[in-house]
Amino acid sequence: MSQSISELRKRIHRGETTHEHIVLDVFEKTASPAAKHVFTALYPDAALAAARAADRLQAAGVPIPLLAGLPVSVKDLFDIAGEPTLAGGIVYRDATSPVTDAVAVSQLRQHGAAIVGKTNMTEFAFSGVGINPHYGTPVNPADTTINRIPGGSSSGAAVSVALGLAVAGLGSDTGGSIRIPAALCGLVGFKSTQARVSRVGAFELSRTLDTACAMTRSVADCLTVDAALAGSPLDVRRRDLKGVRLAVPRAIMFDGVEAAVASAFDRALETLSRGGAIVTTIAFNELAEIPRLNAPGGFSAVEAFAIHRQKLAGRRQDFDARVAQRLETGSSVSAADYIAMHNARKGWISRAESILEPFDALLCPTVPLLAPEIDRLVSNDEEFFKANGLLLRNPFAINYLDGCAFSIPCHQAGELPVGLMLSSTNGDDARLAAVALAAEAALIDARATA
Amino acid sequence: MSQSISELRKRIHRGETTHEHIVLDVFEKTASPAAKHVFTALYPDAALAAARAADRLQAAGVPIPLLAGLPVSVKDLFDIAGEPTLAGGIVYRDATSPVTDAVAVSQLRQHGAAIVGKTNMTEFAFSGVGINPHYGTPVNPADTTINRIPGGSSSGAAVSVALGLAVAGLGSDTGGSIRIPAALCGLVGFKSTQARVSRVGAFELSRTLDTACAMTRSVADCLTVDAALAGSPLDVRRRDLKGVRLAVPRAIMFDGVEAAVASAFDRALETLSRGGAIVTTIAFNELAEIPRLNAPGGFSAVEAFAIHRQKLAGRRQDFDARVAQRLETGSSVSAADYIAMHNARKGWISRAESILEPFDALLCPTVPLLAPEIDRLVSNDEEFFKANGLLLRNPFAINYLDGCAFSIPCHQAGELPVGLMLSSTNGDDARLAAVALAAEAALIDARATA
Repeated sequence: MSQSISELRKRIHRGETTHEHIVLDVFEKTASPAAKHVFTALYPDAALAAARAADRLQAAGVPIPLLAGLPVSVKDLFDIAGEPTLAGGIVYRDATSPVTDAVAVSQLRQHGAAIVGKTNMTEFAFSGVGINPHYGTPVNPADTTINRIPGGSSSGAAVSVALGLAVAGLGSDTGGSIRIPAALCGLVGFKSTQARVSRVGAFELSRTLDTACAMTRSVADCLTVDAALAGSPLDVRRRDLKGVRLAVPRAIMFDGVEAAVASAFDRALETLSRGGAIVTTIAFNELAEIPRLNAPGGFSAVEAFAIHRQKLAGRRQDFDARVAQRLETGSSVSAADYIAMHNARKGWISRAESILEPFDALLCPTVPLLAPEIDRLVSNDEEFFKANGLLLRNPFAINYLDGCAFSIPCHQAGELPVGLMLSSTNGDDARLAAVALAAEAALIDARATA
Repeated sequence: MSQSISELRKRIHRGETTHEHIVLDVFEKTASPAAKHVFTALYPDAALAAARAADRLQAAGVPIPLLAGLPVSVKDLFDIAGEPTLAGGIVYRDATSPVTDAVAVSQLRQHGAAIVGKTNMTEFAFSGVGINPHYGTPVNPADTTINRIPGGSSSGAAVSVALGLAVAGLGSDTGGSIRIPAALCGLVGFKSTQARVSRVGAFELSRTLDTACAMTRSVADCLTVDAALAGSPLDVRRRDLKGVRLAVPRAIMFDGVEAAVASAFDRALETLSRGGAIVTTIAFNELAEIPRLNAPGGFSAVEAFAIHRQKLAGRRQDFDARVAQRLETGSSVSAADYIAMHNARKGWISRAESILEPFDALLCPTVPLLAPEIDRLVSNDEEFFKANGLLLRNPFAINYLDGCAFSIPCHQAGELPVGLMLSSTNGDDARLAAVALAAEAALIDARATA
């Protein structure tokens, strides 16, 4: 089932498979070793019911909803009615169960999705690595020899899609939590403008930065899921790469980049230039200001500390120690400093928007690293925090910008996955989507002819 | 010129006066003893130009903009291009001058208003009393024997309208700053739902609670000014009082009410009942929770401290000492507590909205006091803070609700002004306006036949 939504739709239409068959296949595979630690809950009955309903509509020749009968996974931080939302932790097991699904989940169901299960994640979505000490760490399927991190925080979401257990993984992105695992697992991740999708019923990390969004196998699939989540599709005007204005920043985003990532990125840039894109290098030194402006503490630490401080006071030992440590950096921030952080961000966004105004997209590697080994990061705090900082750096800049971004694969067959991030400013999702579609097509072409 | 917009329009139409004449008359009167401390800046040239332009349009028989050529005053906290915005203080005299008018000011100009001057206010809008140690305290014109406070923070705005120096006073309302002076000076004040009017270019007190809005001589005038400020009129469906469902809360809002206020309120209630309104007494104990939920510090103290902390650190002696003291209560609030205040408010609003759902408006005295003497409050901190707390209590509840409210006069001729507050929930401005128009008409009728 490692196929895109449109490929599956074609196969179903030709009678080569059915929604029921696809979903049954998923539940057979969830028990495989590769799928270990991917799901924290499974919903076979509900998923099969949705698949069979889609088959019936299909048989009747009725036009079917966007995601009808197709397997979709949901990150553990979205409310599913009737069970407490744990968000990758254990301290909320005794919390009240929500009586309704999160809006994003409900939107998926409205559009016919077969929700197959809840996916594992970094505790409270608070790291880009994807290690979880309570529920285990899903293994990145891109490397069959070494156990590498899947990226996080939407770790299980990425592996569920990479293994073909879902056509889409609903997740959230506060500093890269969709784009990082998409990049490291070879998928497409779309962090839409925050305001596009409701966060009602989604466990908060940072109310300022959280975005509910998804990863899939292709840009087109991301747009299908986005249309379901947002309630209406983006007005994407298809274009080719000719004349697309791309900016590549000199500041920050290439610091510490691994050779394999650099060469995949350079190759991608060449492909896009050959396709007619106009690539301009810009300084964009404002990127270097973010760590200072987003201090002390940072929005995520401050806002998440406000949520967890009672549990931290009573049950600190039941938190992932690294998450607890990061949360506590939010404890010493004053309300005035926090308000100043908002003001500083607003000013920064305005300056950054005017720098990006002449361009259709900003280009950089989604993350500067190939997926690190799980064991190395589990055993060593310093390595963990260093990798986490590098993984979050580039994607976070776009959350800070209140912008939108795609991560699309730009590695060659046989290489470990590398993500190319195309970003733009607030509300520019439709134009960016057109660029991402064109870039993806060019990169696939180049891969085929390589 | 103590006439409503529609009365003036009629007189101009009949040729009894001109816009120019009206505005010239204003500038003659600004020098009178009664107008002392009302304005902090005057703009005779610009105002006369607007008046003459309106006269020309009028002469040409062209339909003229809503506020064309009519004198309007602007609270000292709105940007006027080319001069620093002082907001009733002295510590920002060396600040950069804005290059554009505040959006609210610009909206007034777009609709033809003759901006006559900037009006005095409580320093940084941070009290409901209206005393200002830097620029003096405008005297409430309602009492010719005793110098009483005008109410604040939009003190000069109220006196400018009460003296007939403006048909409307643009101000702001964070905890009653429009409605308190309207009540104490015998005017109509309309605190619209916060989101209706842009606050761009308005000096902030509390970003959470600030509303840009105005006071006038009648409900209809408030709606005219609101249409200009918001850019389009409310869809008000005129109705009479028959069947209007009014709720009167038992909790809090009548504590400490003075006899004269209580009897004016009771009389008004009787008038509205006689007109067909259905009055229900409700407990609404949630009102009593506000002081606890809005602690520690309160949104205004926390958010204003973030703005002024640098100046407070260096030039505390140049602040109104009472304002400085209140600002400093915001210094000790943590970011987590501040976020918790937002969460608590959100929950409270949801509970309060369901209590108010069956009613067209909530009724109470705008403030429980007649205007206190200036000298008594200037000389005594305890009296000042007690009066300030009582003046803010009822109006603030509606800011906390994120709702909308009118204060309309309900005293008899010869009595000191008493305001009747009609309030409703977020976005219910149009329905509330219809109720306020009907209530105002009934109260004017009753006054005429008394």
